[in-house]
Amino acid sequence: MSPEWRILIDYFFSLNLAVDCNAVLKALQPIFQEQGMTETVHNWEDHGYLVTYIKKNGSFANLRIHPHGLVLVDLQSYNDDMKGREEVDQLLNKVEERMKELFHSNIKRVKRLPAILRGGVIDRYWPTADGRLVEYDIDEVVYDEDSPFQNIKILHSKQFGNILILSGDVNLAESDLAYTQAIMGSGKEDYTGKEVLILGGGDGASNIDQMVIDGCKKHMRKTCGDVLDNLKGECYQVLIEDCIPVLKRYAKEGRMFDYVINDLTAVPISTSPEEDSTWEFLRLILDLSMKVLKQDGKYFTQGNCVNLTDALTLYEEQLSRLYCPVEFSKETVCVPSYMELWVFYTIWKKKTDI
Amino acid sequence: MSPEWRILIDYFFSLNLAVDCNAVLKALQPIFQEQGMTETVHNWEDHGYLVTYIKKNGSFANLRIHPHGLVLVDLQSYNDDMKGREEVDQLLNKVEERMKELFHSNIKRVKRLPAILRGGVIDRYWPTADGRLVEYDIDEVVYDEDSPFQNIKILHSKQFGNILILSGDVNLAESDLAYTQAIMGSGKEDYTGKEVLILGGGDGASNIDQMVIDGCKKHMRKTCGDVLDNLKGECYQVLIEDCIPVLKRYAKEGRMFDYVINDLTAVPISTSPEEDSTWEFLRLILDLSMKVLKQDGKYFTQGNCVNLTDALTLYEEQLSRLYCPVEFSKETVCVPSYMELWVFYTIWKKKTDI
Repeated sequence: MSPEWRILIDYFFSLNLAVDCNAVLKALQPIFQEQGMTETVHNWEDHGYLVTYIKKNGSFANLRIHPHGLVLVDLQSYNDDMKGREEVDQLLNKVEERMKELFHSNIKRVKRLPAILRGGVIDRYWPTADGRLVEYDIDEVVYDEDSPFQNIKILHSKQFGNILILSGDVNLAESDLAYTQAIMGSGKEDYTGKEVLILGGGDGASNIDQMVIDGCKKHMRKTCGDVLDNLKGECYQVLIEDCIPVLKRYAKEGRMFDYVINDLTAVPISTSPEEDSTWEFLRLILDLSMKVLKQDGKYFTQGNCVNLTDALTLYEEQLSRLYCPVEFSKETVCVPSYMELWVFYTIWKKKTDI
Repeated sequence: MSPEWRILIDYFFSLNLAVDCNAVLKALQPIFQEQGMTETVHNWEDHGYLVTYIKKNGSFANLRIHPHGLVLVDLQSYNDDMKGREEVDQLLNKVEERMKELFHSNIKRVKRLPAILRGGVIDRYWPTADGRLVEYDIDEVVYDEDSPFQNIKILHSKQFGNILILSGDVNLAESDLAYTQAIMGSGKEDYTGKEVLILGGGDGASNIDQMVIDGCKKHMRKTCGDVLDNLKGECYQVLIEDCIPVLKRYAKEGRMFDYVINDLTAVPISTSPEEDSTWEFLRLILDLSMKVLKQDGKYFTQGNCVNLTDALTLYEEQLSRLYCPVEFSKETVCVPSYMELWVFYTIWKKKTDI
């Protein structure tokens, strides 16, 4: 129902000198008027000009001229056909040409960013954990459902394959074997005959949300294989329930594991006091996991984006507050679909002197 | 001189139903007016409304109401302090609240993208080879010079370390050991006692542009080590000149190599006829390289982004047009700072029946 909108932005000229706003306006005006656009000028005096150009077909442009030497052009259209694109490119080329005639070598920087598509069926913009804007090469919505817990999307990327996105967070793509390798100890462990407990990992392991399992079983087979087809196999069992009571039961029964792999959630980003309960939840899981981990066992988990140093430090502080003393190491890994480097932790019980 | 500009964009509401543009305007109007913004309304009738709100400090907002059910808000400001950010967030929160009161479950999608910074000293936006918009975590301009051949930038990224950017193309970051490994055959080769010819690789090897060498020698030491400090070592020599005459001389002298590593340039993106000369240049390098490559030698090179299938196919077609028959294999590798998967080629001389 909604048309696809394009916005061409961050087309700007950064200049080495103060400019006469009116002279810039007069120089660029004919380029927009040739396109049959009508002009509305707002003059702030000390803050320069905003000129709005409106076209009959619903497109419009903003020309913002700042007296300190910055000229910005934004163009919004919803004619996303080749003809519309060419027209826009031609217009911007003319603006660039005219600006170069006016300011020659005083132009410090010219920048024209790729168009942003908005309002369309396919959403290509999934910001990173550290809040940067990144565009994915999404070409298909494979699955999009709301469960009682979260929104579950599986989107197809040309280069990364299907990507699982839970409530807006990129979780895992078919390209991301590096993630699975990292959270399993980067190939340095021998799992033969070992007891392994995996918490989370809805893309191929136990999870509270049946709908994630259903989506992944069908659309993420490159990551989960046929593991989710049958919740019980010769050497594994998938439990779809809250992991806390299960951990408590195992602890009570004295059931011990060689490895605990926590793939529940990334380290909380926020460091505000309201998040206290999240950190408590995190410590509860850690404490219970240590209770079911053998003395020489290993606990693997993801941290977060390497740039979120405050959150990672807070996480490491939690590790010193567990019921038993632990030590840890960390590793920074490039997970292809994340577009940011990710930190993984290995935690083990501190050897006590006898 | 130029102030830092922020634009908050792609804040949009995609609706399941046609809307009364005037009703939306009347509902949202007070939110902007409370901020002391003055309103200019343009009514297209069949294409809806564009409402421009202007603030005394030079900031402004566009509210675009489309009758088919799309409402877009853009906000531009250059008060990039915390107070300014909070004000903007509050305004957008109020818009969202009001829209939810108006349309309830008919809102299909709400999206608020990270702010785009423009006009500042630091440019964080370096589109991928396949034309996607990506923001880097750049926090410092380390080096920025124009050589007779190109613009050379070395920018510092918090997670990737220093990044070499040549005329706008991300070339290599300190995080990108994966690139070097891939172009050296992914750890499968034993270089002991072998003769290796490297073409390009200004980040640590021969290059025509002395200024790239100078910048990298100082600021990319994690990638080039001390190789560039002395252009001649016990087992290597760096030539800063055009590689074509050198290759011709080697061919004439009959000097042969076990490996030729071509790190000159990515495969041309354009597939237009004007690019013919680029393809010819590429074939010339390939032919000359094959002439100096031993019969059982290997030629390694980068291709391009895995999404640029047309360009890669054209490259592979060139391989069938060389003076001697060759075979090739390719590998797709994740180079951390590229934010896209990259194709690398291994090429060797076809074994001929005796």
